Amino acid sequence: MVDVELALVRALVGAELAPASALKDLGTDLDPLDLAALGRSTGEHGTPVPGLVKALRERLGDGPAADVLHRGATSQDIVDTALMLVARRALEPILDDLAVAADRCAELAERHRDTVQIGRTLLQQAVPLTFGLVAAGWLVDLDVARAELASVRATGLAVQLGGAVGTLAPLGDRGVEVVAAVAAQLKLAEPDLPWHTNRTRPARLASALGLAAGVLATIARDVTLYAQTEVGEVVAGAGGSSTMPHKRNPVDAVAVVACAQRIPALVATMLGAMSQEYQRAAGAWQAEWETLLELLRLTGSAADAAHAMLAGLEVDPQRMRANLELTNGLVMGESVAGVLGESLGRARAQELLAEASRRAVSGGRSLREELRDVPEVRDALGEDELDRALDPASYLGVTSQLIDRALARHREVS
Amino acid sequence: MVDVELALVRALVGAELAPASALKDLGTDLDPLDLAALGRSTGEHGTPVPGLVKALRERLGDGPAADVLHRGATSQDIVDTALMLVARRALEPILDDLAVAADRCAELAERHRDTVQIGRTLLQQAVPLTFGLVAAGWLVDLDVARAELASVRATGLAVQLGGAVGTLAPLGDRGVEVVAAVAAQLKLAEPDLPWHTNRTRPARLASALGLAAGVLATIARDVTLYAQTEVGEVVAGAGGSSTMPHKRNPVDAVAVVACAQRIPALVATMLGAMSQEYQRAAGAWQAEWETLLELLRLTGSAADAAHAMLAGLEVDPQRMRANLELTNGLVMGESVAGVLGESLGRARAQELLAEASRRAVSGGRSLREELRDVPEVRDALGEDELDRALDPASYLGVTSQLIDRALARHREVS
Amino acid sequence: MVDVELALVRALVGAELAPASALKDLGTDLDPLDLAALGRSTGEHGTPVPGLVKALRERLGDGPAADVLHRGATSQDIVDTALMLVARRALEPILDDLAVAADRCAELAERHRDTVQIGRTLLQQAVPLTFGLVAAGWLVDLDVARAELASVRATGLAVQLGGAVGTLAPLGDRGVEVVAAVAAQLKLAEPDLPWHTNRTRPARLASALGLAAGVLATIARDVTLYAQTEVGEVVAGAGGSSTMPHKRNPVDAVAVVACAQRIPALVATMLGAMSQEYQRAAGAWQAEWETLLELLRLTGSAADAAHAMLAGLEVDPQRMRANLELTNGLVMGESVAGVLGESLGRARAQELLAEASRRAVSGGRSLREELRDVPEVRDALGEDELDRALDPASYLGVTSQLIDRALARHREVS
Amino acid sequence: MVDVELALVRALVGAELAPASALKDLGTDLDPLDLAALGRSTGEHGTPVPGLVKALRERLGDGPAADVLHRGATSQDIVDTALMLVARRALEPILDDLAVAADRCAELAERHRDTVQIGRTLLQQAVPLTFGLVAAGWLVDLDVARAELASVRATGLAVQLGGAVGTLAPLGDRGVEVVAAVAAQLKLAEPDLPWHTNRTRPARLASALGLAAGVLATIARDVTLYAQTEVGEVVAGAGGSSTMPHKRNPVDAVAVVACAQRIPALVATMLGAMSQEYQRAAGAWQAEWETLLELLRLTGSAADAAHAMLAGLEVDPQRMRANLELTNGLVMGESVAGVLGESLGRARAQELLAEASRRAVSGGRSLREELRDVPEVRDALGEDELDRALDPASYLGVTSQLIDRALARHREVS
Repeated sequence: MVDVELALVRALVGAELAPASALKDLGTDLDPLDLAALGRSTGEHGTPVPGLVKALRERLGDGPAADVLHRGATSQDIVDTALMLVARRALEPILDDLAVAADRCAELAERHRDTVQIGRTLLQQAVPLTFGLVAAGWLVDLDVARAELASVRATGLAVQLGGAVGTLAPLGDRGVEVVAAVAAQLKLAEPDLPWHTNRTRPARLASALGLAAGVLATIARDVTLYAQTEVGEVVAGAGGSSTMPHKRNPVDAVAVVACAQRIPALVATMLGAMSQEYQRAAGAWQAEWETLLELLRLTGSAADAAHAMLAGLEVDPQRMRANLELTNGLVMGESVAGVLGESLGRARAQELLAEASRRAVSGGRSLREELRDVPEVRDALGEDELDRALDPASYLGVTSQLIDRALARHREVS
Repeated sequence: MVDVELALVRALVGAELAPASALKDLGTDLDPLDLAALGRSTGEHGTPVPGLVKALRERLGDGPAADVLHRGATSQDIVDTALMLVARRALEPILDDLAVAADRCAELAERHRDTVQIGRTLLQQAVPLTFGLVAAGWLVDLDVARAELASVRATGLAVQLGGAVGTLAPLGDRGVEVVAAVAAQLKLAEPDLPWHTNRTRPARLASALGLAAGVLATIARDVTLYAQTEVGEVVAGAGGSSTMPHKRNPVDAVAVVACAQRIPALVATMLGAMSQEYQRAAGAWQAEWETLLELLRLTGSAADAAHAMLAGLEVDPQRMRANLELTNGLVMGESVAGVLGESLGRARAQELLAEASRRAVSGGRSLREELRDVPEVRDALGEDELDRALDPASYLGVTSQLIDRALARHREVS
Repeated sequence: MVDVELALVRALVGAELAPASALKDLGTDLDPLDLAALGRSTGEHGTPVPGLVKALRERLGDGPAADVLHRGATSQDIVDTALMLVARRALEPILDDLAVAADRCAELAERHRDTVQIGRTLLQQAVPLTFGLVAAGWLVDLDVARAELASVRATGLAVQLGGAVGTLAPLGDRGVEVVAAVAAQLKLAEPDLPWHTNRTRPARLASALGLAAGVLATIARDVTLYAQTEVGEVVAGAGGSSTMPHKRNPVDAVAVVACAQRIPALVATMLGAMSQEYQRAAGAWQAEWETLLELLRLTGSAADAAHAMLAGLEVDPQRMRANLELTNGLVMGESVAGVLGESLGRARAQELLAEASRRAVSGGRSLREELRDVPEVRDALGEDELDRALDPASYLGVTSQLIDRALARHREVS
Repeated sequence: MVDVELALVRALVGAELAPASALKDLGTDLDPLDLAALGRSTGEHGTPVPGLVKALRERLGDGPAADVLHRGATSQDIVDTALMLVARRALEPILDDLAVAADRCAELAERHRDTVQIGRTLLQQAVPLTFGLVAAGWLVDLDVARAELASVRATGLAVQLGGAVGTLAPLGDRGVEVVAAVAAQLKLAEPDLPWHTNRTRPARLASALGLAAGVLATIARDVTLYAQTEVGEVVAGAGGSSTMPHKRNPVDAVAVVACAQRIPALVATMLGAMSQEYQRAAGAWQAEWETLLELLRLTGSAADAAHAMLAGLEVDPQRMRANLELTNGLVMGESVAGVLGESLGRARAQELLAEASRRAVSGGRSLREELRDVPEVRDALGEDELDRALDPASYLGVTSQLIDRALARHREVS
């Protein structure tokens, strides 16, 4: 807020609405402000600005800077612009963390391009994919989230300056010029109009943070699932407690989930707060302040924890391979049915597979053994053909091409 | 969903994964489907697709189309792609309504460029603006919301096709080609990767709808406030009930508010549902279905009602002028202080105004009368100057320039 | 709504505000109403009531019933009371389903009181409990949710009748009497005051539904996790698809999660809608209508699916036992440390266990083997004592007592 | 958290699971803890408890208290119980503020029992009521919200103690006894079962806070509306800014609205977080921590501001009377139609009123003048009867009885 007030003074000088002599007072050391007093004043006035202006005037002394301080501005101008500055600063480490996380996903996608893993739907083993494809899926959405946040940072963070009702009346015919000068100084966008009660800016920022959090949440959720004791395909924790040394608690992933889980509701608060009365809202605007800070803080924490989580992620291809065997080949039924179907027709092939699968489940034998006992299958497929159809690595479709696409897109945005 | 299944068959034929003869079966009349039976099957399988495929196969008979139907696809492929088609269709009237609403705001901004009105902050009269500036504020945000929705429609609605776990394995090495062909047929974007559990697409759509709803809500909230019996600056209702014929219930504005108020929470549901397990979520994906439809339906209703509300809006410049007089000139205090400050200094001017205002409130006289009685004011300002400073039309700053900017931006996007 | 209008006529007759002859018209067959016409009229008037009253009058003919129909009421009276009736009807099957679900949990708690299972924290194996204790935890919260809903049904569903602004002015001094009579007829509570904009009633109903949904969600989430292929401690699905016959998709559990996941946001909409202007809200009240119905519908679907899920749940004690062995005894470290600590002190015991556990992990031997090789342990614990400390069934604390408490509490409320 | 750890040591001594000598160490001065170090440890372990226990052990020295500290507990036991303690402490001033607010509403209801005011529906003037009835409506809901919060405080805040997975295994067969002793010491309820992942307790607390916030929000919203410059029926602000001395910004009401508007979404987060995995959630539990504190803080701020708002509320009966005149009598149309209807029949009476109202609106005359010109009306009503029917004070129905009911109910709970 101090930065905003000082930028305004400089802009007033530039527009010859304040004497150049005001500039030299701006070097005055303004710290530290009495935050407790500011808090009390905030409660009394409903915004922190009157107390801040008073405190700054006391510091600046009787000179021209004190005299023109806050000229033309309303409290909301200062608070909104300050929130935009805070957002810009907060987005920097968030975008950095997301970039590193995306790079790490790209690396995982490349390295595990052929690391076969069972795919799971509704938490049930289904058919194979590779861990590289999983990482590529994470990557694609991280890059989407980064693009949204970068777009908001580049064009969505604008200065707010309109005076009491958005006309900039106290600045006569120089209002537009002063807004442009403040925007240039603070490196914020210059809005077409003051946006006191037209709140697409904070709403878009909130939505972009919500999108990023959602992407991080699904990655972290996957990590906690892959790290389950019974799954064990990744290790995502530094080590267990003294009483349970075998545990590898996925602390970073849990932190991502915990932060991200709180974000959708905060986005809803921001969207609901868009409905603001007349030229200054009686409540909805004030509801934005802490909500926006919370969104930035929580997304920042989630991005930081996700960065750590991905950096430390250990992948266990052996365990992935072992898990593929858990069903004694049943997960390859779709693959075999596809091959069999070429000679026997889809319907008959599926029927044979369904029967063999049922026998395998009830009799405790492998799908391979059951299938070898079926003359119709033996006639249709040689031993090698059957083995190939039962090999997860043979049933990956266009996995590698898809990974290439994700990596290529990522290189475009890196 | 039927469109998606048929597009897939065509794409399979194109990729030579199905015989060309399958195409001619596609002309079969598939209507009407037994929706009750579909509903029961949906409950049993957890998605509507197995029941649908069965019903379509029965219609298509024993030919090649029935045989290749749904080949390579998983239920989620069909449901997600169908949702994207529904979204594209629903966005059309929404964008149309928003465009008409924006044009109407532009017209109001132009026509009421100089229609002076009191600005209100925290629901208290503050200083003047023009109704044109209010309408320009609405316009700017409508255009932002339209741009977001148009961007989502243009690039964010993509086909979903990945098979059980996203590898497109049943299609061998032709998967990418088939996806492209389905996308082309359905006029949806071709995604880099299947997005079964990477949900930025539905999330961005939801956020864009949330943004539009927020913009409509604030316009409608303003309309209900301006239409209050005690304010009366607009009339926004067709006429009262039989028992209360004086009432002009703002029925359309109320409908906008009612629809829009339900939207932020639904957006939160969509963002929260982004966290989806492994290759197919056990609940979160299914939670999206009706939520997304509800978002489209409610935003559509809000846009339609907003269109009607703005089309029928009657503006009452006389009542606006009358309301400017309600405080006996007190709302012009800031203006007078500004002018007085040029000769007496800001601090002294504000002090004089504060005193005069207090006397005006307690004594029931106008600010003008009180000021005329202060020698210091009389010395500083001639009668004409004072009258000008007390004239709302003289204290509008850069209102007209701001309106021009909003209109220029609107022309760019129209 | 028809029930409400007719109850009002009867009450007016009872209060001698309408002739007794009005009663006999009430037998007129009022079905079917033209719902499309009602829909159009709703759009026009902003509520369905004017259209309904008009339609009913047409049916009732020119008699006294038509004349007094809707007398003293405002549209909101009819809509709110009707919503309360719908809520009461909807709560019946919901409470029935929850009761059956709770009974089933009680049965599981009793039957699996001693079925040892590994407890899991942060999705990592921790120390043992029994599946009976898990079911008892579900039971306790189901009973809390049932009590809340039953309390809302018993006292929270009240008639709404106040006329335009809550004074019941058109009924002169008989208003209170008429309200009581309508309440008695509809078996709804009689409120102290009309509650047009005092919305604790719908808000409490929504919160109680939200609580029930949250309880169901956590049970269903557990079921999907226990049913994972790699965990396999319960089977919760009827059987797989034709192409993946090994899958046992937990369809009912997924339905519970999907419904329940949409509910918290709808509760937020209801709480946010409590802020209603003056004597009739311009939007917030109307936002309640469908939201409340959706809450009832979704909670009802979740309760029904939960009922089915629990009824069909198969528990696999053998697999539970097998999973306890997955870590080669490491999960019993806390138990052994407790016993060892009695002679060696807690700190030393934990140190020994941590070392043995680490060796077990790296060397691939069981914790038992590692511990047997430590002289200090051999000196402190005999072979039998060690085996007992390594036996999950010996480390269950007060599990059985806790289950007894849950069952006793359940019997109280059954 | 320190209180919880110490209570546990005392309970262990009581159950003879720790030596009595441990008690005397508990007098050690434990302050101040190094909060920054605790923060770092929290990030590392995912909960603050390991760092806290370590810090406490360092303070307590090598004695028996340090040795038994935290025995039998898991981190969640400490955090959850501490949250319950925080909730109990926070609810005290909240309930106090709500009680004072309710008393103030009771006083307003009594004092303004006959203060006639126009009722407004959809923000349009409708028919009269009294301000006492408005205040009685506020009162009734404040008392409902108080009852809910008091009930949660009395029975819903329970100790959490279960050990790693809820069996209390480390305490052998003394677990239940220890839980009871901790509960007694901390004056929290003793739960039937540990509730690590059975979250009705925090959810009910959150819902009760949400209910209270909703009640406060609607009162505050009304206050901002009644305080509008154009309505002016209450004054709710201390005084305007220096530049706009005429403004009476309703700062307290705005604070209530701002806090309350953020609460529904936080309740949704709490309800959504009920779905917790197995015996300790990987994210959802951790998401509760700050959310619950935020709910307590925001409800506390809202209650405090509401207290101030109601304490300072100035009611302006004269302005209420003046606003009743704004429509030149049209708001009394329903009243006149009622009286006329007794002789002319309802339909004819409404028709006459509708016509006269339309003429009044278009011709600028009062409803009284228009009606006097209608022979049919003159024949039916004498001048006195018409004047009485046009007098707002004559058309208040059972307002006074309703106020009595609200006051009686309030006395019951005070």
